[in-house]
Amino acid sequence: MPAPARHSRLSADGPVLDGIPEHGRVPRYYAVKVELLAVIAELGEGAVLPTERELCERFEVSRATVRQAVGELVLEGRLSRRQGSGTYIAGPKLVQPLATESRRPGIRPGRRAITLERRVAGRALAADLQVTSDAEVFHLERVLLAGDERVGLESTYLPAARCPDLLDVFTPEQPLSEQLGMEPAGAEERVETVLATPREAMLIGTNPALPMLLTHRISWGPDGVPFERVRSLYRGDRLSFTTRLGRPAG
Amino acid sequence: MPAPARHSRLSADGPVLDGIPEHGRVPRYYAVKVELLAVIAELGEGAVLPTERELCERFEVSRATVRQAVGELVLEGRLSRRQGSGTYIAGPKLVQPLATESRRPGIRPGRRAITLERRVAGRALAADLQVTSDAEVFHLERVLLAGDERVGLESTYLPAARCPDLLDVFTPEQPLSEQLGMEPAGAEERVETVLATPREAMLIGTNPALPMLLTHRISWGPDGVPFERVRSLYRGDRLSFTTRLGRPAG
Repeated sequence: MPAPARHSRLSADGPVLDGIPEHGRVPRYYAVKVELLAVIAELGEGAVLPTERELCERFEVSRATVRQAVGELVLEGRLSRRQGSGTYIAGPKLVQPLATESRRPGIRPGRRAITLERRVAGRALAADLQVTSDAEVFHLERVLLAGDERVGLESTYLPAARCPDLLDVFTPEQPLSEQLGMEPAGAEERVETVLATPREAMLIGTNPALPMLLTHRISWGPDGVPFERVRSLYRGDRLSFTTRLGRPAG
Repeated sequence: MPAPARHSRLSADGPVLDGIPEHGRVPRYYAVKVELLAVIAELGEGAVLPTERELCERFEVSRATVRQAVGELVLEGRLSRRQGSGTYIAGPKLVQPLATESRRPGIRPGRRAITLERRVAGRALAADLQVTSDAEVFHLERVLLAGDERVGLESTYLPAARCPDLLDVFTPEQPLSEQLGMEPAGAEERVETVLATPREAMLIGTNPALPMLLTHRISWGPDGVPFERVRSLYRGDRLSFTTRLGRPAG
């Protein structure tokens, strides 16, 4: 059997074997959520979900119960709300290799610059970039796009001394290290889940309660000295990351 | 300057440069949250947070506002609630390499088995493991421990035909592939953020609203045929993952 498409041999679905717990008490909203997953599968991507009132009648539960079930499915990216036009079935999460992975075609995101500033490093950043606390760094903040959709927010910090001509070569779309001709000899990346701050939520166009995926990356050159520190925040309902070890499967 | 300890040269802190947004309106709870981060830094790990009432007086806000700020900090793992003894300052998130990374000493988690069953694969799992839908698989479910703390839940699925003697060699602590002498030639892993189901929350001992990190992994042998499918769910407030590219920094 050939490997599935979409840059991944992992099936795009959630739990392999899941559903209603076989023991313990099941909260009512969760039973509704499981029923809604069947409705979602049946209707398919892009379809509009029945109204809250219809769902209350169908499952014989209160509006609050339907709201909690729908709310969790929105947070998890299975449903999506459009202002004024109700709730619809969302597409699958985008799959993106971690930056420490080699790039693969077709999934490089677009970028829109919103901040480019020169500032003093401060203690934490100075430690990461191996510069003094009062050294100057460039801070470039960009909204990450997948097609027209805003999916994340990226902050890149570079020691100003290593790229004095940044303002001359800068274009918002390209990864900075490429524009500066810096080829990483190594990189370390950390992934965690956080909540968006109100400012971040506003820039990405989402709600602050949404769990986000946050990656921190440091890249260094052949001399072992870091040349960039990147903090990237992605919508948890829209993105997942992949890594691969060893040669591709046969 | 030498790289920091704890298996990572990335500083353990959150945003490099953050704080109150410089534009846009700041919700009151968020201003309180930023104030609380300063309180947390001052008190240090393990200290007890002042009571809700004290915080209301100190920041001159309502109880609901304090609750929302504290609630988010709990979800993000900065604060932790102990039944009957209030809210205290949590330690930093644990850092763990992704399974597709080479293992490093000192961070292998403990495991406690809760389910070992033989069952029919079904469609999604059959596609991942390249077996027929009616093929038998072993499903082993284990709680993941970091010391005494429950931090995750791991489900491993193996084609029964590839490990007929599993029940004879099985010990709960070790990774299954090691017990079966299966050395992966390659693996693919995907990371995303999800909410725990009520059953998962119960087994990990956490609350279902907590954002979790979910990893899906398929490992294959030298023949390119998958021999295991692993679904691991980790507390988002306690765990972060790292990957590294290229040689360590100098």
